[in-house]
Amino acid sequence: MEKVTVEQDMHALTPQEETYELKKDKVEIILQALDVADVSGVREHVEDMHAADVAEFLNVISNNQRREFIEIIRDDFDPEILVELDPDIKDNVVEVLGAEQSAEAIATLEHDDAVQVIEDLEQSNQDEILEAIPQEQRDTIEEGLSYPEESAGRLMHTKYVAAGENWDVGSAIDYLRSSDDLPEVFYSIFVVDKESVPVGSVLISKAIRNNRDVKIKDIMEDKIYTIKDQMDQEEVAYTFRKYALASAPVVNGDGKMVGVITIDDVVDIMKEEAEEDILHLGGVKEADLYAAFVETSMHRFPWLLVNLVTAIAASAVIAMFAASIEQLVALAVLMPIVASMSGNAGTQTLTIAVRSIATKELTETNAKRIVIKEVLASAVNGLLFAGIVGLVSYFYYDDLYLSLVFAFSIAAALILAALSGALVPLGLVRMGVDPAIASGVFLTTITDISSFFIFLGLASIWLL
Amino acid sequence: MEKVTVEQDMHALTPQEETYELKKDKVEIILQALDVADVSGVREHVEDMHAADVAEFLNVISNNQRREFIEIIRDDFDPEILVELDPDIKDNVVEVLGAEQSAEAIATLEHDDAVQVIEDLEQSNQDEILEAIPQEQRDTIEEGLSYPEESAGRLMHTKYVAAGENWDVGSAIDYLRSSDDLPEVFYSIFVVDKESVPVGSVLISKAIRNNRDVKIKDIMEDKIYTIKDQMDQEEVAYTFRKYALASAPVVNGDGKMVGVITIDDVVDIMKEEAEEDILHLGGVKEADLYAAFVETSMHRFPWLLVNLVTAIAASAVIAMFAASIEQLVALAVLMPIVASMSGNAGTQTLTIAVRSIATKELTETNAKRIVIKEVLASAVNGLLFAGIVGLVSYFYYDDLYLSLVFAFSIAAALILAALSGALVPLGLVRMGVDPAIASGVFLTTITDISSFFIFLGLASIWLL
Repeated sequence: MEKVTVEQDMHALTPQEETYELKKDKVEIILQALDVADVSGVREHVEDMHAADVAEFLNVISNNQRREFIEIIRDDFDPEILVELDPDIKDNVVEVLGAEQSAEAIATLEHDDAVQVIEDLEQSNQDEILEAIPQEQRDTIEEGLSYPEESAGRLMHTKYVAAGENWDVGSAIDYLRSSDDLPEVFYSIFVVDKESVPVGSVLISKAIRNNRDVKIKDIMEDKIYTIKDQMDQEEVAYTFRKYALASAPVVNGDGKMVGVITIDDVVDIMKEEAEEDILHLGGVKEADLYAAFVETSMHRFPWLLVNLVTAIAASAVIAMFAASIEQLVALAVLMPIVASMSGNAGTQTLTIAVRSIATKELTETNAKRIVIKEVLASAVNGLLFAGIVGLVSYFYYDDLYLSLVFAFSIAAALILAALSGALVPLGLVRMGVDPAIASGVFLTTITDISSFFIFLGLASIWLL
Repeated sequence: MEKVTVEQDMHALTPQEETYELKKDKVEIILQALDVADVSGVREHVEDMHAADVAEFLNVISNNQRREFIEIIRDDFDPEILVELDPDIKDNVVEVLGAEQSAEAIATLEHDDAVQVIEDLEQSNQDEILEAIPQEQRDTIEEGLSYPEESAGRLMHTKYVAAGENWDVGSAIDYLRSSDDLPEVFYSIFVVDKESVPVGSVLISKAIRNNRDVKIKDIMEDKIYTIKDQMDQEEVAYTFRKYALASAPVVNGDGKMVGVITIDDVVDIMKEEAEEDILHLGGVKEADLYAAFVETSMHRFPWLLVNLVTAIAASAVIAMFAASIEQLVALAVLMPIVASMSGNAGTQTLTIAVRSIATKELTETNAKRIVIKEVLASAVNGLLFAGIVGLVSYFYYDDLYLSLVFAFSIAAALILAALSGALVPLGLVRMGVDPAIASGVFLTTITDISSFFIFLGLASIWLL
């Protein structure tokens, strides 16, 4: 869908674009310095690295290397590194740093970052480090942790810029210049009424372009999207993306402003939520790339066990037709093809459905239309593949009736698969279950059992 | 991993949090007004809706309803709606609006939004609308379209705020006040040298807090992350997330600043890229929720055809052992269980690997360690499930040797599945292929063929 113009040559792709991932060469060089205990060499390499790059480095090296590396940079340890680490690695790093230094580092972080680092730690590390953090900061961190997991309350900064309804631009700017209790970065001034209820917002880029005597009220955007402190982080991300927000005020149950969420936190949430959906569809509970292997086994065991039960159920269907298979062994050869095609067609529909439900594009309003469309789309492919497999199997087995049964089964199985692929996630949503987690198991159970039943059942009736 | 404190009750989850998705009730009310051709009713309902909500409404209604609705709001049509529509719906809406009104609407959009709307349209609509856009704006849009698809050049705003190295805060603010060619929203002032090469940036929230006579050079952040105009949008998103950027300067091949990318565009890209990975893993080429059903069939046909070929390859392995199955039909009953367990275990590893490669967490540095870990994790589950299936099948078939063959096959197949699940995506990356697209087919081919071969092969040797 690209418009092709003559200018296109001007911007020909260079073979190697510059990117900001931590390069393998850089990793190797630091590891070599580490290997020969070249302390000053390691420090020199790390000196000008961004905390996010140091975290990326810590994520990919081994436990032993991590211990040695942290000992070397301990005195210059940038607290921001903790924010960027993979959760599994965070525990390891704070254990090497020790509770006291970890607490000291976390105490220097902005409120939302401190909460995020602490919440990712294992309970024992949480307790130990919280105890070592000065009373006042501990209280605000514990206040943050008292909000439900994955809620807006956990994401918000508690420092923010709020102006009264009667302020003018000049007084707002003077306030910004004189106050020493402001967040490091902010994009908007929020306007609150006497009850601390947010009533509007002004982007700084807009405020700065107005004269000092202009009333804030006259230039503020009064259509604001407030975030309830209880809102799920996935809804927060949805709201930011939908309305292209850079920051939004967070309010408590009484509608009073209690904090601000900024887009940089939302970007992390978006990554996390997309990851969750991908992993759940793949039958994985959580990202555990860096976890110990036994822990990983245990994460995956339950899903494999569920799968075993459904596979046994499907094989029970096959067992029902054991006599037919003994008579005509071609059935055993062809039946996995029906199940495989059905499973894959169903997964295609399921993937679209689960993703569209997550992005709120598939709703009750258009559900019926989408289901019908999916079934029709699968019917087209069902007929095409019925033709293909019918011809191929006839060529191979030279048995017209077997080929007809095989072809008919493929068509029926594909249509049923699309129907299930759409209805299973929609049904799960109605039951209040996250469709990304459970849809796959339900679907393959349905496609396996129905494929074997249709194919072996028809074969038993018509061929034997 | 949540810290439980006594305050937790303070923030108990309310059953129904307020969210900003377009409510079903609202949709129904507008559709009812539309149904009885209540023109003023429809207009009244739409009047205070955000463009993003109107777009969400247009996405979920039927083609006929969309046509009627647009006719009613035609005179007040908010151009921003076009930006928010699903790509498949965009074509439909511009066709109803007509080329002239569409061109008029697109001409009022900011540069990056105009490019994005045009690039999503089908070629015929693109041509017709571009022709109707005034020369000057058409040129800038075509300049945007001349960058490769999904590149930074297509995402950038061409209006931005740049200051000279010798400016002070006062002159920057005066410039912002007097210039009428500024972007609507901006977060930073970029500092460029005489050659237009960006050398630093100052957040407005920081500039505004300094006195007028402070030199920009003295407060600017000189570690800036410039984006090459050719950079892939996925890399752009990675850079923004990693360094928590709100905006970044875009440079051409000579390093000269040509535009700015802001976080709101990146948020859309993040959604798009996560979607792509999810869909590719599910065997779907693109999101086509709203496409016509025949189009959807055609999108999905190629992948199903590939799957058919691999399923036939797997069934050819079964055919090799047809004589064994005729002798012992239990083999036909049990073989799908081996393949199903192996396929699922492999998919678990594959999902983690593909996702970690996409987020640059799985790199050449830690690949070997991760592969070994995955194989060990699968070996643990392999042994556990060998025990379970061995016992269950012995109980059912009362055949010690069959159970042993079955158990051993499950263990071997699970280990091989994990090895393949990790090595297939890593191998594809090395070959320069996107692992999200092709990994699934390779993996199931390997797990199906190896499962049937191991189980039926061992059974033929040991049991018959």
